[in-house]
Amino acid sequence: MSELLQNLQWRYAAKKMNPEKVVSEENVNFILEAIRLTATSSGLQPYEVIVVTNPDVRAQIVPHAWNQSQITDGSHLLVFAAWDNYTTERINEMFDLVNEKRGFKNEGWENYRQMLLKTYPQRDAEANYQHAARQAYIGLGTALIAAADVKVDSTPMEGFSPEKVDEILGLKARGLRSVVLLPLGYRADEGDWLVNLKKVRRSTENFVTEVK
Amino acid sequence: MSELLQNLQWRYAAKKMNPEKVVSEENVNFILEAIRLTATSSGLQPYEVIVVTNPDVRAQIVPHAWNQSQITDGSHLLVFAAWDNYTTERINEMFDLVNEKRGFKNEGWENYRQMLLKTYPQRDAEANYQHAARQAYIGLGTALIAAADVKVDSTPMEGFSPEKVDEILGLKARGLRSVVLLPLGYRADEGDWLVNLKKVRRSTENFVTEVK
Repeated sequence: MSELLQNLQWRYAAKKMNPEKVVSEENVNFILEAIRLTATSSGLQPYEVIVVTNPDVRAQIVPHAWNQSQITDGSHLLVFAAWDNYTTERINEMFDLVNEKRGFKNEGWENYRQMLLKTYPQRDAEANYQHAARQAYIGLGTALIAAADVKVDSTPMEGFSPEKVDEILGLKARGLRSVVLLPLGYRADEGDWLVNLKKVRRSTENFVTEVK
Repeated sequence: MSELLQNLQWRYAAKKMNPEKVVSEENVNFILEAIRLTATSSGLQPYEVIVVTNPDVRAQIVPHAWNQSQITDGSHLLVFAAWDNYTTERINEMFDLVNEKRGFKNEGWENYRQMLLKTYPQRDAEANYQHAARQAYIGLGTALIAAADVKVDSTPMEGFSPEKVDEILGLKARGLRSVVLLPLGYRADEGDWLVNLKKVRRSTENFVTEVK
């Protein structure tokens, strides 16, 4: 079996992490780099990743996340935080960066910029945030694979109060809204009810349909 | 550099695919298996993947997707289609499958089922669909990596009319709504304005914040 499929089989949402074990800076940076490199709509990268190692800050988040202990038992907490809106400034910043890095202006690219500028900033902020949040999920899918690739455990969490996490991390002032949490760490030897249970997925027949 | 990062650097959203080249069944199945294995919220897998190879059906979709030629120039079109709602039946079906595969009932798991049954089916269908659609984006992030792993090109597309695609594929009757398209194929030798341009991403400093 390919390494990718092996990694996807290996990973699971660890329910209990070992508080003694720390993910190395090298491995965390590898996971972050994979997230940074993956795709986003129009290449806008409309989210940021907050890496929380501070134990007090993580402890503050726990009661607003169903008391899930991986947040403090893991060594790093990734918070995917999406733009609260697509603004003219944010779109221009990314298109300008592309021009700067490529060293020239591409006419098609400039037309595309104008199209986005005529569309996104005029849209409802909530619709824009929802679109940005979806992009963060591409990053989440990428992070799960990257973590498994270096045998780091991770637990995606949607069960938390975004408003509280935004408040604790000061995200609102930065125009960001927390979307999903991903503690990183190592599974504990004991206390994880899920670790030895079979991974269950719908059969391919119930998941894939062909239109030939 | 790790193979994963190399793959993420290699991939891009191919703008012109070679209509002569066909992605092998083996490679398509590999990409589908990676999607099937990755994580979803509560393991519900609230989406399906429609694999369209039929050229007429793909041609019908093209005008409703900004005439993007990869849809017909590629050999396979993946359509990620999310559940239009979380229903009691759908939730029970997945929990029952888990019990069947694991061969026993887990008390914590049954409590979790009850919690979801008390929450999701009562929520607004649109909110449930939006949540399901986010899960499909984890699958999308996974598919991009899997495709790159076997050097298959892919182009994520949000620019299309979901209502029209739903109609063409008969998704509404199946309780599904199209979320994102992903043509698979091979980049053309000529005619792709993007293929030789530098991949641009925000710097790590502008993408990652540490809270130490």
